[in-house]
Amino acid sequence: MNEIDQTAPSVREGTPTIHRVGIVMNGVTGRMGTNQHLLRSIKAIRDQGGIRLSDEEIILPEPLLVGRNPVKLARLAAASGFDKWTTDVEAALADPAYEVYFDAQTTDRRAVWVRRAIEAGKHVYCEKPTALTTEEALDLYRAAREAGVKHGVVQDKLWLPGLMKLRALRETGFFGRILSVRGEFGYWVFEGDVVPPQRPSWNYRKEDGGGIILDMLCHWRYVLDNLFGPVRAVSCLGATHIPRRWDEHGRPYDVTADDSAYATFELEGGIVAHFNASWCVRVRRDDLLTLQVDGTRGSAVAGLRRCWTQAYGNTPRPVWNPDVPQPIDFFDGWLEVPDQQAYDNAFKAQWELFLRHVVRDEPFPYDLLEGARGVQLAELGLASWQRRAWIDVPPLTS
Amino acid sequence: MNEIDQTAPSVREGTPTIHRVGIVMNGVTGRMGTNQHLLRSIKAIRDQGGIRLSDEEIILPEPLLVGRNPVKLARLAAASGFDKWTTDVEAALADPAYEVYFDAQTTDRRAVWVRRAIEAGKHVYCEKPTALTTEEALDLYRAAREAGVKHGVVQDKLWLPGLMKLRALRETGFFGRILSVRGEFGYWVFEGDVVPPQRPSWNYRKEDGGGIILDMLCHWRYVLDNLFGPVRAVSCLGATHIPRRWDEHGRPYDVTADDSAYATFELEGGIVAHFNASWCVRVRRDDLLTLQVDGTRGSAVAGLRRCWTQAYGNTPRPVWNPDVPQPIDFFDGWLEVPDQQAYDNAFKAQWELFLRHVVRDEPFPYDLLEGARGVQLAELGLASWQRRAWIDVPPLTS
Amino acid sequence: MNEIDQTAPSVREGTPTIHRVGIVMNGVTGRMGTNQHLLRSIKAIRDQGGIRLSDEEIILPEPLLVGRNPVKLARLAAASGFDKWTTDVEAALADPAYEVYFDAQTTDRRAVWVRRAIEAGKHVYCEKPTALTTEEALDLYRAAREAGVKHGVVQDKLWLPGLMKLRALRETGFFGRILSVRGEFGYWVFEGDVVPPQRPSWNYRKEDGGGIILDMLCHWRYVLDNLFGPVRAVSCLGATHIPRRWDEHGRPYDVTADDSAYATFELEGGIVAHFNASWCVRVRRDDLLTLQVDGTRGSAVAGLRRCWTQAYGNTPRPVWNPDVPQPIDFFDGWLEVPDQQAYDNAFKAQWELFLRHVVRDEPFPYDLLEGARGVQLAELGLASWQRRAWIDVPPLTS
Amino acid sequence: MNEIDQTAPSVREGTPTIHRVGIVMNGVTGRMGTNQHLLRSIKAIRDQGGIRLSDEEIILPEPLLVGRNPVKLARLAAASGFDKWTTDVEAALADPAYEVYFDAQTTDRRAVWVRRAIEAGKHVYCEKPTALTTEEALDLYRAAREAGVKHGVVQDKLWLPGLMKLRALRETGFFGRILSVRGEFGYWVFEGDVVPPQRPSWNYRKEDGGGIILDMLCHWRYVLDNLFGPVRAVSCLGATHIPRRWDEHGRPYDVTADDSAYATFELEGGIVAHFNASWCVRVRRDDLLTLQVDGTRGSAVAGLRRCWTQAYGNTPRPVWNPDVPQPIDFFDGWLEVPDQQAYDNAFKAQWELFLRHVVRDEPFPYDLLEGARGVQLAELGLASWQRRAWIDVPPLTS
Repeated sequence: MNEIDQTAPSVREGTPTIHRVGIVMNGVTGRMGTNQHLLRSIKAIRDQGGIRLSDEEIILPEPLLVGRNPVKLARLAAASGFDKWTTDVEAALADPAYEVYFDAQTTDRRAVWVRRAIEAGKHVYCEKPTALTTEEALDLYRAAREAGVKHGVVQDKLWLPGLMKLRALRETGFFGRILSVRGEFGYWVFEGDVVPPQRPSWNYRKEDGGGIILDMLCHWRYVLDNLFGPVRAVSCLGATHIPRRWDEHGRPYDVTADDSAYATFELEGGIVAHFNASWCVRVRRDDLLTLQVDGTRGSAVAGLRRCWTQAYGNTPRPVWNPDVPQPIDFFDGWLEVPDQQAYDNAFKAQWELFLRHVVRDEPFPYDLLEGARGVQLAELGLASWQRRAWIDVPPLTS
Repeated sequence: MNEIDQTAPSVREGTPTIHRVGIVMNGVTGRMGTNQHLLRSIKAIRDQGGIRLSDEEIILPEPLLVGRNPVKLARLAAASGFDKWTTDVEAALADPAYEVYFDAQTTDRRAVWVRRAIEAGKHVYCEKPTALTTEEALDLYRAAREAGVKHGVVQDKLWLPGLMKLRALRETGFFGRILSVRGEFGYWVFEGDVVPPQRPSWNYRKEDGGGIILDMLCHWRYVLDNLFGPVRAVSCLGATHIPRRWDEHGRPYDVTADDSAYATFELEGGIVAHFNASWCVRVRRDDLLTLQVDGTRGSAVAGLRRCWTQAYGNTPRPVWNPDVPQPIDFFDGWLEVPDQQAYDNAFKAQWELFLRHVVRDEPFPYDLLEGARGVQLAELGLASWQRRAWIDVPPLTS
Repeated sequence: MNEIDQTAPSVREGTPTIHRVGIVMNGVTGRMGTNQHLLRSIKAIRDQGGIRLSDEEIILPEPLLVGRNPVKLARLAAASGFDKWTTDVEAALADPAYEVYFDAQTTDRRAVWVRRAIEAGKHVYCEKPTALTTEEALDLYRAAREAGVKHGVVQDKLWLPGLMKLRALRETGFFGRILSVRGEFGYWVFEGDVVPPQRPSWNYRKEDGGGIILDMLCHWRYVLDNLFGPVRAVSCLGATHIPRRWDEHGRPYDVTADDSAYATFELEGGIVAHFNASWCVRVRRDDLLTLQVDGTRGSAVAGLRRCWTQAYGNTPRPVWNPDVPQPIDFFDGWLEVPDQQAYDNAFKAQWELFLRHVVRDEPFPYDLLEGARGVQLAELGLASWQRRAWIDVPPLTS
Repeated sequence: MNEIDQTAPSVREGTPTIHRVGIVMNGVTGRMGTNQHLLRSIKAIRDQGGIRLSDEEIILPEPLLVGRNPVKLARLAAASGFDKWTTDVEAALADPAYEVYFDAQTTDRRAVWVRRAIEAGKHVYCEKPTALTTEEALDLYRAAREAGVKHGVVQDKLWLPGLMKLRALRETGFFGRILSVRGEFGYWVFEGDVVPPQRPSWNYRKEDGGGIILDMLCHWRYVLDNLFGPVRAVSCLGATHIPRRWDEHGRPYDVTADDSAYATFELEGGIVAHFNASWCVRVRRDDLLTLQVDGTRGSAVAGLRRCWTQAYGNTPRPVWNPDVPQPIDFFDGWLEVPDQQAYDNAFKAQWELFLRHVVRDEPFPYDLLEGARGVQLAELGLASWQRRAWIDVPPLTS
């Protein structure tokens, strides 16, 4: 299964210490649970020989696959090579061989089970949104703090190579003072009548936890807070541009959730973030998500993996003259940021940090309080839409 | 001096009727006055032999250059070949040889002189904003209507080739139902300490009529109303990202006006328009101004002159997978709209319409009421910024 | 001759004030005197209508051509359109119509005549080196200061567009802390036996004031001092790589002067400048002169007009692996600096500043003391070569 | 395990004679030891079936991996397929199965163990620098000579394809008389605060044997001596441009060694070599190391693998005119040297020569005396920096 185990017999003097960490992985049969968390994170960590703490010490995760459909679980166990699975969450939580509980279920089932895991004394790690309301999300945080367990929330976009490049640019002072951030997210999700839809129908039903504001503002919160500055106020307008869609079975349904969001944020330091997100746009930009950061000394545009910069000295001096074809190609004056380091899968990168946090107590700031902040911004965004006004974002501490 | 005069002797029997229209051009030494209105419009109309109404009839504009600096006026007269100039506006208005008064002065001086011209019985045509307040702008409209003079306001962007292509796409049903419009405008205006600035300093002083909201929302009003639907509500946030600049003489000054605007508009029919405009951004897009229109059947992105489309059948189906480089080039799936007609200078095109309106009474909808609507949107945008809330845009009739 | 004069009759009220400045131009028949100073500077200033101080005020230079060969002078007068010339320098200096003396003679004749002009009460402006020794150069400065005349020395490379771009980059903080500057200058000057030489033979004879150290170190001094920091020490090695050449008439001669210089400079702040200059190299770089500046936050390479940058965030992470072809194209990761302003001829730009200094008393730091600093560095460079050691550069004030 | 063994059964009558050469490889877990010496040299020699001396005779190296970290050794043994390893150097030296001792430890540990190996009667081959002082390096040479063992020092850059092409050009008379050599080496080594560093921290600590002068002047010595002529004098300036870096564990440390070197060398025959080497530069040149050689008849520029030439007849005749864009592309007038032979890995090529020297006594000039010459140049370079003067390089014989 991994390099260390295979060679262990021949390595007499040089066997390293192995920290085995059992993980109850609940909701692992879902799309994200299977692909990002099990296969590209936990299995990838095993395939590389564990997390190397030093030449003499490694961490090896040992997952227990948990879900509601035994057929799916058995199939996933066979495909992944991890042979332990169960449909009995309570029994899993009672098993002392597992010290971590992970949750990738649908949002409405998350808070209940994370709380149960905390009560069972497990360290917890989970997907976002951590809950459906800020109050509930904060309660989870307080419970974990009081129980003394370690806790974390997935904030994968921080490890997107494109955003890591933005962060490195900021840390090396490339931008000077940051003035504004413009974000565009989304693409055309087919309605399903003629072309089959590429996203699940629950995303478009409010009663099932759908809606692009709830989904994306959780992400924007940690991206903005971590890369540019704490969010202080939000103005958000939602829209349901496409009122009727066809589901996975070809049946028409009414769209009850917002499919587009037009949001403006004020950040500490006077930075303005102007974002739109929509499942009803066609993409003419560098990537499915792009962030443009403009600063006094330079600007950058990041997609998921790539990033381009234009420094002050490379900034052109255009002339407004509609009488002639624009002589400047505005894509030419940008230079791509090279890969200055290796970029791992975003989910795996965060998993490694969390497991080091569990084993070594290394710092891990992406905790349940951070998760609650994401829920808070989504909640206030929805309120802003309803009240047709800016809403301040109060500090959320405990 | 112009083509018609030179060829006149050889056109014995067929000498056309010439309607000479005297125009008092006030503020003609300014950047816009000189380049767009005098040289590229009036002089260009003269150089092409006037406006041909028919084979037998033409309109010839006869400008009187008016300004405050005689050295500049003399130099402009020499350069343009129009030798009549004066610094005495009152005298010009009293001269019956001129039936049209045109105003391209700074905004704070406009309303006073347009009103004086109306009182003197002149037809009036002027730059936008027509006034500093909606009330004042409406008063001008009422005064002109009561005086029975003809009146018009510059709305040049309607004749940008890129926007004319958008209009043609809409009129031929390309978009299906229009869902949203995203607009980006602006570029980096150098502060002036190291690199000389490319825009006049008054633009950045509120007390001199500066500010990007006042400037651009007048434009957005007629663009949105004419191309997509009447504006019903506005939410606008202004910002002064660069608080200190250096003027034309290299002297530092405090910026008192907004240099960036983040606005969202609701249009009739549920269309959302999400616009930003800034003098503090670096350009990574197709042009200095781009409008993206997304509709149920297709989308288009227009710059000043060019326009690209993506119809439903050409819409790609992207996959979110940050682990691999994005396999789709999102600029590839768009097709350019060819020049299906000749496009004249936008200012000249509107001048021709206005002069035909004066001479022939042809329809000219871009009047002082339209101008007042632009001022209204700017005023409400500024109010929205102050109140931190959406503001409805009431109908403005008379 | 210029736009203002031609239109003057028709401009009654708007005639600007004209400051006419007479200039005795000595040595104007030489290559540099004719091309750079007379034609591309003084004549170009006249052709553009003088130096515009404001809309109402201009400076018009009025040259008197001075040299030793009347045939050449007459020919130059005819070609340039400036009809006043003489071979009598003393008479020219005695003529009160001329307030400025300019000198572009060969180096060995310069100090004598500049001193005479100072004694005659003229303002002086001259080519570099201002003298053959530091002491003599300093004496000229002291004489001018005591006489109270204005004075200046040509430092044209400061107005090379490429170097102006470097300066703007530095002023906007692009480099962070500057660490080092690498300079390469030169190209292959043909020996003259087979291919005719492209530079005059006196350049290669020490007894005629030749030698690349004397020539170039004067330039490096003001470039380094002004763009990067005061020069504090120099280590210089000269070489005569090609000992025999053929002169303008095809006659062989012994090269007695250095044709290559390998110099290292220490600047204030720990910056190291590593320069070579040679007439015996073949050029595989961006231009005839290139300067590479490396700083903590970014680097730039400038040629005469163009400049390329690489910021920290665009810096690649190469791997040393000679077993495979280098996968990185090291020219790709650089972005060109656009023309953020108009760049005039370097000599003309400095002439305009000097004439404004004369007429308006605007600041002009490129004076005879600066000129003496250039001579000093050349002198110390030659001494370093002889002593085979670093030599400190003492401050030169008065 | 290797090609010879596999094919042995089918080569009944013609079974070749195999010279098995046991090699104690000390320091093999380091970056260079692992990659260049073990994997790309010794393992590559094994993979190709040994060194073929003739159809009937081959040399097969048999390594014993030696280091201090058993975990690393075990892992390297598994990865390389060479299963013998130990941490006991003394025992290895006492084992008569090994006749060669190879050393790739850090510099400060080298001399001690090379001397011990000589005393144990081993042939010795080692990395450079062979010692920290010339005296110590010479002592090693004398000890080996007196002990009658064979000895060699790594001089890998002589087998870089780019430098082999330079040598071939010189040997065929392409350059005419060589006038000068300009060398540039280095790239940006990340400090480690934001971007992880790509070189080990000991390189930047003088107390650990770091410093670019010590590292690179050893290389320059054999490159210059072998390709262009014996080095006669050196002037060298070191600098520590980046005073603070972050180590492998993210901890900040003070840089105590020089990270940049500016050196000029005089070679026999009046050739000047002007070199800079720096870990604080961004690369705008053909490769990480480039050498430009200018001669009376032609010039060449070599990188690690590629090489470009410009002969006298292809030399352009540029004009200095900053008023127009440079009309010549100075990269165009060069022609690439094709691969006129196959180029093996540089380290492997030298290993093969050394092993032939051991087995067959073929000539091998790259001995410990040559190694001492490298140390000498580094030592004198450091002395030149301290004394701020040129230092002659006395012959080093024995």
